[in-house]
This record gives sequence, structure tokens and C-alpha cells, in this order.
Amino acid sequence: MLPPVPTAVNLADVARIAGVSPATASRALSDHPHVAAATRARVWRVATDLEYVVSPEASRLAGGSTGRVAVVVPHLSRWFFGAMLEGLESVLREAGLDLLLYRVGEAAERQAFFDELPARRKVDAVVVLGFAVGDDERRRLERIGVDIVVAGEQSASYPSVRIDDHAAGRQAVDHLVHLGHRRIAMIAVHDPGADPAHPAGRSSAYHAALADAGIAADATLVVTVDRGAEQGVDQGAEAMGALLGATSPPTAVFAHSDELALGAVRTVRRAGLRVPEDVSVIGVDDHPLAALTDLSTVGQPVHEQGEIAGRMVVSGLRGEAVERVVLVPTRLVIRGSTAPPRRSRRGATRRADV
Amino acid sequence: MLPPVPTAVNLADVARIAGVSPATASRALSDHPHVAAATRARVWRVATDLEYVVSPEASRLAGGSTGRVAVVVPHLSRWFFGAMLEGLESVLREAGLDLLLYRVGEAAERQAFFDELPARRKVDAVVVLGFAVGDDERRRLERIGVDIVVAGEQSASYPSVRIDDHAAGRQAVDHLVHLGHRRIAMIAVHDPGADPAHPAGRSSAYHAALADAGIAADATLVVTVDRGAEQGVDQGAEAMGALLGATSPPTAVFAHSDELALGAVRTVRRAGLRVPEDVSVIGVDDHPLAALTDLSTVGQPVHEQGEIAGRMVVSGLRGEAVERVVLVPTRLVIRGSTAPPRRSRRGATRRADV
Repeated sequence: MLPPVPTAVNLADVARIAGVSPATASRALSDHPHVAAATRARVWRVATDLEYVVSPEASRLAGGSTGRVAVVVPHLSRWFFGAMLEGLESVLREAGLDLLLYRVGEAAERQAFFDELPARRKVDAVVVLGFAVGDDERRRLERIGVDIVVAGEQSASYPSVRIDDHAAGRQAVDHLVHLGHRRIAMIAVHDPGADPAHPAGRSSAYHAALADAGIAADATLVVTVDRGAEQGVDQGAEAMGALLGATSPPTAVFAHSDELALGAVRTVRRAGLRVPEDVSVIGVDDHPLAALTDLSTVGQPVHEQGEIAGRMVVSGLRGEAVERVVLVPTRLVIRGSTAPPRRSRRGATRRADV
Repeated sequence: MLPPVPTAVNLADVARIAGVSPATASRALSDHPHVAAATRARVWRVATDLEYVVSPEASRLAGGSTGRVAVVVPHLSRWFFGAMLEGLESVLREAGLDLLLYRVGEAAERQAFFDELPARRKVDAVVVLGFAVGDDERRRLERIGVDIVVAGEQSASYPSVRIDDHAAGRQAVDHLVHLGHRRIAMIAVHDPGADPAHPAGRSSAYHAALADAGIAADATLVVTVDRGAEQGVDQGAEAMGALLGATSPPTAVFAHSDELALGAVRTVRRAGLRVPEDVSVIGVDDHPLAALTDLSTVGQPVHEQGEIAGRMVVSGLRGEAVERVVLVPTRLVIRGSTAPPRRSRRGATRRADV
């Protein structure tokens, strides 16, 4: 399904089509200062169109290191990405590396970034924050000849740092089970880039925790929202509406993020119900909002993951060994949004039935 | 008070002290690729120590444009800065400019950034997000010979985009006055970099609005918190504690930011009082949290300010005229945290006294 990888394009082709000498094309592509901006832009456009790849070896030989690291993030105005970026920036700066920032929120922006990247060898390494790298993107990344690190997301192909999503999901759902809940819902995030054969860890943990507790699966208690939208809170609010509209609503909800959980809390309250008396809600992240709104959650160290990604980049550029996967521990943070279920008539009947 | 500006340092001095030829020193300072990393680092260190300034004219002549813009921010994990950065990034990328990100949260980091900047002409422009540029910093910035734009903060020296803080403060305090409040407190932010002769606009608006309403000033109703701390919510919570402990507590509070306002709300509730029945609270920003928590506020378009700053940079680099000050409009957003004061006995007595 992927377009064939053109390998026959060489610098002379780029120069000819751009209407410049090979020497000028080479200077333009290596960001040499003595090239007019218009010429440089034209050469890059041609190189991008042809998917020309500056030979990593030749480039390294000719160009040495750039002292720059590209950081690619899907969002900037959300705490998770800002906190991770903050940790990463501190380590890169400490190491004397500059950080080039690229936000690729939408599919088109992401495509454009990965399209342009191979022709522009402007950085020594790329750090991908908070999204899974797809097959086509991986193919392009591999042709650049720079180090790649993934943070806050799993990656089979590159060194990565993240939490153990399955363990985090178990901490959340086991907490609800231990409180005595039997009707436990999940507001799950669907990642279109994830491998369908390996369901996301937080979802698999939910199913495993219920099975271990002898609770039958109920598909009406799982609502899936698409990843990548700007505002998780509204998605969570909407998902909770669907759950409350079910014939037999849940007494507890596990949301894949605090933002989704806070949206769920909002809907519960707007429905005239109370958290946690009528519905317990737990999220994941320990977003600053969680402490503020007394939300129980599974906390992940976000700033630290950024720092670790930064250290992986620095080690890689020094030619040192880099761990393939670093898992940072999560912790259950019990606040006021989770409590045992009320002994309602329905609940009592249930227990008698079991 | 400022150290004298050394002007006699030239490239030969830097080269001699670094133990390299002038040609090598020149190449190192212009980020030329054929310089060993260790040599480059040594030359830069010497240049920084000597406060050597690469001649802007010579540098432009030799180096052309870098195609890069430095963005300096005090925080990354806070919504305000992330949202502004997001707007800025989109415009710079559209114009084909790369964004080099520097976080300078603490005084020491900020000092280091401005110390190193003059010797490293790595960018065509600098955008300062969300803090006032001090005199010493301005002196250093001016010696670099790059365009400078300030966003989200006032600047007498550089093109800037921001809200009209006085107008925003009036929108908030006038709203409380119109609701019938007379004991109106303020949780103010103190910016040590601001000109003491010109009090910050939000504070001056508070005093003007009270005076216009014939309400006598009461120093016990103003609590000032220091700017720059990581977490405004806790500061707001603490400030509200001080206000509630006063002999005659306020019935309404104007906080300089939504984060401070949310901290204030938390303290009011923990004290067993209700918002807005016992205390009305209003902030500034329209942080996503404000909608979520039903907080009244004065909204400012943050993403747009980033975009406008980006367009100012692009215009400046194209040699076009750049406006000195762009003020973006704010709007009063009335939600559930503000209401008329209760007709308490104390309030009734007060009114009888007047």
C-alpha cells in the first residue's frame, strides 16, 4: 500500500530540476549561509517533491553535528505535553543542545512534517512526544539518519520512555473493585495508530481486572472516544451522558485520562447525581486539575518522562548505549471522587442474586 | 548599577584567548559546520565571558538569515504559555521559519540565556512570551541586532501584543460593583520587573473602579502575590485565607488570573462558605478550567496573541513596518461564581451607615 521508496534520486537530479549547480544545491540543503533565501527555498521544494534524502553519512561527514534536536508534539496548550516538553528542554539545554519545536496536531500537519523532514537535515535527533509513529512515518524517519526517541507513548521501533499502561489501568480498576463496585464503566481512548492486535494497555487492564474479580463483561459499559481532539473534557462529558442513559448505569467509571474523568464528573453533577455517592470516577495522569477538583487518579511522572527522553537523546548522540524501553512507575492517588457504592435497593437485589 | 558595556573586545581577542586562529573563531561563532564541537564550545565560552558581540552587520553580511526564531517563555506546563506558543508556532511554520524554544523560568536561567545570546547569532528574531524585559536584558538584546517582539506583556521598547490590562480590570471590578458589592477584595500579582511608577493595569483599574463607585479604599482587602511561581492556584488559596481572616471579610474577590481565582474558590469552600452566595469570585484569562468550574472571568484571546506576535516577526523580517503596540480586546464572561451579595445583617447595617 505504501508508495515505492525512490532511491535513484541523487543530488544532480535535484540541482538540475531546481536550475542550480550541484554545488549550490548541496550548500542549500546543508543550510550553508552563502545561499540566497529564494534559491534555498527552491532547492528544498524540489528535494521534497523528489523525496530526495541527503545521504546521512555524507551529511554527517560534511556537516558535523547541528547541535539541534527537533521535538514533535501534537498539542502545546495541554498540560501533559507542556510538562513533558519542560522536562525535555531542561536536559537538552543542560547538554548545550537547542530545541526546534514542531507542533503537528492534525493529520495534514503531521504528513507535511514527515514529508519535509528527510530533505532537511537540520537536526541531530528527533523526539516524538505523545503519539505513536505510524509505518509510513517510520519509513521516512529511518531515511533521515538521525536518532529518534519516543516519549509518552509506546514504540516497537525506537527507544522510548512511558508508563506501563496496563499496570496503570490495573491500579485504577482494582481500586474500584476493592471499593465494592461491580458495575464499572470505562471511557477509553481509541488510537487509530495503535496496533489492533494489541489493545491499548489501559483497556486490556480493565478487562483483566473485571475478569479477575469475576465480573462479567458488559459492552454497554464501555464508551470509546477518538484520540487527538483538542478538548478531552467535552468528550468525557459526552461519553458519561451515554453511560448514564444506559438501562443499568454504572456505579463507577474508569476514564483513560483526567480530562475525560473531569468531563464525566461534570455530566454526573449536571444530571443531579453526586460524585462519589452516586458515581465514583477515577482518571489517569494526576493533572494539576485533579488535585484542585479532588479527583482520584493514577499519577504519572510527566516532567520526568521528558527528562528521561532528553537523557536518551544525549546518550545516543554521544554514541553511548540507549535503553530500548524505559517504564516509569505510576501511583494510585485516592482523593474524594471514589468511594464504596451506595447500598441502593437495586444493589442489594443484585448482591442477593449473586 | 549596571556593569560597563565592554566595546573594545574584538574577534582577535576571542581567538587569542580561546587559542585558535581568528578564522576558526569566526567560523565557530557563525555555527559553521567545519569546526569541532569542543573548539566551538571553547570559543563560545570565551566569547560569552568577554561579552563579545558578533557585529550584527558583519554577521548579516556573512551569514544571511538563519531561518530561525528564538522563543523565550517562563513556563511550558501552564495553559497560557502553551496556547500562546501554539498560535505563534502556526504562523512561524506557515512562513517557513523554525522555532527554537528556550524556557527561562528562574532568574538564573533567564540570566544565563541573556548572557549567552549576544555571542550566538543563531536566530533572526527573538519573541519574549509573557514577561517584562528588564533594563539589563534590554541592553543585551539590543546588541544582538535581531528583531524582538514581546507578547502577552507590555513593552516600552519593542513591538508588543497584549490585552489592555486596565480595561480588563475594569470589566471585572465593574461587574462586581454592578452586582451590588461594596467590600471587594483583590488578589494581585506583583511583577518585580514592572515599573513601580506605573502600577500594573489590573491593579490601577481596581482602584479606579472603586473610586468611581464611591467605595473607600481598604488596604486590608488587597493581597499581593509574587509573580513567577509555578502554581498560581496555591497562591490564590493562601491569599483568600488571609482575606477571610480579616476583621471584615470581602463579599467579592477580583483575582488577577483564573488560576488565582480557582485557588480562592477552593479556600472559600474549605472554609464552609459558598461561591457565589457568600463570596463572589472573578478571574482573568478564560482558562479552559474556568468553563469547567463555572468561574466568571474576563477572557483574553491567548492563541490569537501568539499568532499576532508571529505575524509581527514575519513582517519585521520582511522589512515591512511593524505596529508598536497591538491591543487585543477582552470580554466579560459571566458564569456561576459571581452573584449579588446576600442581604446579611452586617451588610444591612453597613448600608444604613452609609
